[in-house]
Amino acid sequence: MRISELSRASGVPIPTIKFYLREGLLRSGRRTAPNQAAYGEEHLRRLRLVRVLVEVGRLTLASVRRVLETVDREDASLHDVLAAAHTGLRREGPAGGRAADPVRQEVDAWLDALEWELAPDSPPREELAATLDALRRLGWPVGPEVFARYAAHADALAEAEIAYVAGLDDRQAAIEATVIGTVLFEHAFSALRRLAHERHSRIRFGGG
Amino acid sequence: MRISELSRASGVPIPTIKFYLREGLLRSGRRTAPNQAAYGEEHLRRLRLVRVLVEVGRLTLASVRRVLETVDREDASLHDVLAAAHTGLRREGPAGGRAADPVRQEVDAWLDALEWELAPDSPPREELAATLDALRRLGWPVGPEVFARYAAHADALAEAEIAYVAGLDDRQAAIEATVIGTVLFEHAFSALRRLAHERHSRIRFGGG
Repeated sequence: MRISELSRASGVPIPTIKFYLREGLLRSGRRTAPNQAAYGEEHLRRLRLVRVLVEVGRLTLASVRRVLETVDREDASLHDVLAAAHTGLRREGPAGGRAADPVRQEVDAWLDALEWELAPDSPPREELAATLDALRRLGWPVGPEVFARYAAHADALAEAEIAYVAGLDDRQAAIEATVIGTVLFEHAFSALRRLAHERHSRIRFGGG
Repeated sequence: MRISELSRASGVPIPTIKFYLREGLLRSGRRTAPNQAAYGEEHLRRLRLVRVLVEVGRLTLASVRRVLETVDREDASLHDVLAAAHTGLRREGPAGGRAADPVRQEVDAWLDALEWELAPDSPPREELAATLDALRRLGWPVGPEVFARYAAHADALAEAEIAYVAGLDDRQAAIEATVIGTVLFEHAFSALRRLAHERHSRIRFGGG
């Protein structure tokens, strides 16, 4: 198909497709005339993946490139691919920025005790430490064990989510599902938690 | 104490305290001289609450005012107070804005079937509908039941969280805990879910 058809089929505007081509995020089409190229199903799928990474995962171009390189590396496991996508996911931490080093060490020690065998540099470790730091600055003298209940629920959800990804037929679909799932179900969970607060607040404190 | 001492004790700068006084978010102190006033423990606690609402909950001034009015209304139940705080919490939805009406209706019907007895206008209903809409636009032909597992975990967490709030000694402390808990543990949960993804991805797809 031509670039105009690729644009229609993918929902991505032509200038954006041209930008992705220039940036090397999408391979060139097969040249059919001096200023015309033909694109196939493979381009359509890659374009869909790039769009999800950029629009849903809000990855930087550098992160998108890293994910795509990992997808294309035959010796990379699906775990490597998902790790590349996860590392790039943009996430705003709680107000206040980086946690102090001792707080980070406390959180790391607590995570080690969970025996989840996490990489030492996983970005969410820092987010967790920054959250603990913020709780303390707000006057809650808590330790990382305050997160234990949350860890148990997160673990159960993640197990089911990864099982779903394992049932998909290829790596591109697996990354798409991971990015979409991580970002959008985070919104869904947050909305449901607030609704559940409303429910339990009414049960306990209702009336008035 | 004087305004300078109130500032030191609360960590809130004097110009910000003066702004809160002008906006009526903090009651005037007891006048001790033409341009001097004395503040008490009550001001310190109120200031702490305002700060949490503004800095952690990112409530607008109008929302802060609504929460404080509800706190001070003797006929308002703690449920009313928490509802006022919750309604004001700023929250960015998934990209793409409002969901189409039929999607919102599907989500509302699904929530009704949960029998959580939620108010018809709770803001997270819209967030959930927008998330479902976004999933579909990304090519996932799912219904609201895709949220069922998340609802179950959110419900269990919220029950424990509200039980914690119920153990606090006054309404101001209850709102503070609700706002801090809702916002900061959301960050913690999100970080833990990503760490749990890493864990289960390694278990299932590791090596390479």
